[in-house]
Order: sequence, then C-alpha cells, then structure tokens
Amino acid sequence: MALPLPSLAVAGPGLIGGSLALAARAAGCAVVVWTPDPEEAALVRASGLSASVDPATLAGSDLVALCVPPEAVATVARKLAPHLSSTATVTEVASVKAGLGGLLRELFGERFVSCHPMAGTAYAGFGAARPDLFAGRRYLLLSGGAPQHAERLRRLWQAVGSESLEVDASEHDWIVAQVSHLPVLVASALIRAVGREPGTLAASGPGLRDTTRVAGSPPALWRNILTANRACVLAALERFSDELTTLRAALAEADGGAQLQALLAEASALRSDLTPGSAKS
Amino acid sequence: MALPLPSLAVAGPGLIGGSLALAARAAGCAVVVWTPDPEEAALVRASGLSASVDPATLAGSDLVALCVPPEAVATVARKLAPHLSSTATVTEVASVKAGLGGLLRELFGERFVSCHPMAGTAYAGFGAARPDLFAGRRYLLLSGGAPQHAERLRRLWQAVGSESLEVDASEHDWIVAQVSHLPVLVASALIRAVGREPGTLAASGPGLRDTTRVAGSPPALWRNILTANRACVLAALERFSDELTTLRAALAEADGGAQLQALLAEASALRSDLTPGSAKS
Repeated sequence: MALPLPSLAVAGPGLIGGSLALAARAAGCAVVVWTPDPEEAALVRASGLSASVDPATLAGSDLVALCVPPEAVATVARKLAPHLSSTATVTEVASVKAGLGGLLRELFGERFVSCHPMAGTAYAGFGAARPDLFAGRRYLLLSGGAPQHAERLRRLWQAVGSESLEVDASEHDWIVAQVSHLPVLVASALIRAVGREPGTLAASGPGLRDTTRVAGSPPALWRNILTANRACVLAALERFSDELTTLRAALAEADGGAQLQALLAEASALRSDLTPGSAKS
Repeated sequence: MALPLPSLAVAGPGLIGGSLALAARAAGCAVVVWTPDPEEAALVRASGLSASVDPATLAGSDLVALCVPPEAVATVARKLAPHLSSTATVTEVASVKAGLGGLLRELFGERFVSCHPMAGTAYAGFGAARPDLFAGRRYLLLSGGAPQHAERLRRLWQAVGSESLEVDASEHDWIVAQVSHLPVLVASALIRAVGREPGTLAASGPGLRDTTRVAGSPPALWRNILTANRACVLAALERFSDELTTLRAALAEADGGAQLQALLAEASALRSDLTPGSAKS
C-alpha cells in the first residue's frame, strides 16, 4: 500500500519553491506557501495556492521546504524555526551545501534532511515556476537526518516525478561544481568571447544558442552559488582547462588530425550517455 | 510578381543536402538527387524524391547544390562538372570556405555562388534530414558570382524559410569559427572534463545537456572542419581562453564577488540577444 503523501509548506516561492508547490499540489499534497513579501504572496494566491506572510501558516505541515536563496537560508531558518511543528521534516534545496548543514542540524536535529533538485531554467521567480519542472529529473538526497524524515522527503519527490541519487555533502558540492556550476562559467566565457562583434550573433544557429543557454542565468544568484562553492568550482575549472589545452594542442599541430579526431570521438561517446528524455538528461 | 522557383539538383543527400531536397520539394521546387552510393539513392527514393547514381540526372536543373563533406567537394565538383547545364547556378554548403573558392570559380566561373546554412543537428546522414531544418535559420551568402546566379540561390533559400546574411569568404570563416567551431571544441572539453566520474553524469540536468549538445557531433566530420579552419578556430579559442581566465581570476579572489557578478551580467546581457524563436537563434 502506498504511504500517504506528506502535507507540504514551501518557504520562498521562487522558481524552485514555486514549482515544487505547484507540482506537489498537482500530485495531491496539501500545500501552503510562506513568503515575507506581500506582493509575492498575492502572486502565488493568484495561482490558486494558499500563501501568507505569516509564519504561523507553516505550523500544520508534515514537511517544510526552505526554498530561499542560499545566502538567506540561515536567516529564514532561524526566523521560521519557532513556528514549525516539532515533528515536521525540514529540508532546503540550496545549490551549495558547504557551511549550511551545521546550523540546520542544530535547529532541527535529525528532522533536517538536505536535498537538491537537478532542474532549473535560466529564469527566476514564481512567474517562471512550472508544475512539471522536476518530472524526469534527478534530485540529490543528502545523507544525515533520521530515516523516517528522509523517507518523507523521498515520498514528496517521488510524487512530483523525481528520482533520488544519494550522496554526502562533500560529494554533493563536487558533483554540482561539475554538472551545474562549471557549465555556467564556460557558457559565460563563450558568449563573452563571441558576442561582441556586429554580425556574429546574427549568423549564429542552434549550436551557439544551446551551448550558451545557461549564461542567461541570473548573475547575482550565480555569483553567490559560485563563490559559495569556490574550491570545487576552481578544481572543476582546472580539469576543463586541461582538456581544452589537450584539444588545442591537437588542433594546432599540422599532423594532429588523427589525435583531434580521437579526442572528439571520446567526447562524443561520453555525451551519448546524456540522451534527451532519459531520467538523467 | 514572384520570380519562378529554380529547379534543384542536390549532390550528396546527407543531413544538409537531404534536408534541402525535402524542404525545396515541400516549397514546390522540382528536385533531383545524386549520390554515388546506390544504397543511399534507394534510401532517398523511399522518401518519394527522385534519386540516381547517374550524373546525367543533374543535367536539367537550374541550380546544383554540392552538399558533400568539405574534403570531397573538389573531387565531386570535377566529376560532375561535365554533366551540368552550362547555364546552371552551382553552389556548395561547406562549413569552411578557405581553399575551395579557387577551383569552383575555375570550373564554373561566375555561375558559382557559395553559401552556408547556419543549421544542423548532432546527427548525420539522410536519416536525420528534415524539411524544416532551415526554417527561421540564417544562411551566409558569400560575395562573388554573377548577380543573376546569386539571385537564383536567394530564391531557393527564401523558399525554404531561410534569410541571408551577406559576407565574403574570410568573414565567413571567422564568423563560423566563433559561432559554430569554437562551441564544438568547448563542449567537447566540457564533457571530457566532467563525464568520466561515476555518478556525475547521472546527477546532471538540462544545463549540462544543452551546454554539451554539440559535442555529440560526428568526430570525423568535425576533425575536417576544425583543421580546415585552423587559424580562425585557434584565434577564437584564444579569445575564449582570455575570457575564462578573467572569470577565473574574479572567482579565485576572496573579494572578487562584485567583479564576478559584473562579468556574469555582461554575459547574460549578450546571451539575451539570442532569444529562442527569433530568426537568429
């Protein structure tokens, strides 16, 4: 028999929190939303969700998801803690975990379980939220927290169509540096390198558009993510630079064609593991 | 009054030639296809197009498009030249123009007009051809050739939904180095850097998938394109490396956050000129 779905409170209805609220409602969860911003609360209510600026609205939920920007998590957690049920599971979805765990563990003990959905768009805010944002995407479920609380969180993500990948906090930060943070730096460097000459962008096709898509992400958000995960991102960047140097050397040599083709073939084979439509794409 | 559509002969029904044949037929052109490979000819006939291994099939067409791989253009042009109408417009769609123009101009005089559609997928061959491949995409139309022949070529591309951008051969090679060739190298380095650790790809989302899409392109084709355009690609790669170094320095400095955000904001603004759905995206 299927276990009952947890009731959900979302604190911070941005792209991720808003999408989670919409998806959980669509899956049949009871959902409430909290935001300190009355205008944002009104926007959320216009979608038919229950939303309030009063922290007391969170008191009855089985599971509370803190979906505020990484640099706001600590402040919001301290502010909301006194208002939550003493049996509620608490989670947060920040992109970088280093430094966050200690405080949340202190505030919520074994009820705290961290996670991170590997989904997003280049847009921010509730206006960009979509109930299908997590369908077919993985989420990282971090170790720590009591089994029954981890299980409650798994039920929520399963209900919105997302499959778990279980990691610890340092694995998490290294994985996201590679699959999420490094691509933003690379895409940003690429559009900066080619986007300034008149006529160049006008001639571009879908290749440049896709390769640079994540460079359109909100700069203030990404400054915070990248600096919070600085050590891992710099390490990932070093690996990337080494690969680029290897490719460049093969291209620069007059008789490097076979070597270049072998390097491109390895890249193509690795890329084929990311087929569109699979759970991991 | 609209000018009549040219009748079209496509030599080499791969992704580009096959898509051009399908698109031109859909637009109302008379179309014939030539390939030296009997199996490929049969595959093309199965789509309802007229296809033959006999070069005589090309004799009646107003416009002949050589759509074979760059390294085969010279050989195929020499082989087919005696079979073409003496008033036919001849074009080719190679990704790199350096070195090609001389021979084709010698063979076809002012009837030769070069072009390059800025469209493609990571797949090759007639099996991947689509009649809508060029809809809403730009093509580069190269200077040289008589006005009436350039005009005939414009009518064909207009009929399949593609808008021209007029350039000379050296501008062409520098533009495609930036918008097409550099992204393949960057995407290849990126997937090589992050694609080898177990678990990393499984955790990836749409960001990594889009940023590395063009790394899935056929390695042998790209070896030839990149080496044919070596000087321009190396120059574009140097610009990219400079931008990456600048971003890295801002990230590495403890107080570089504001600088990093400013660099990301410039990137985001440049990227916003590549909005999906526009003619240039």
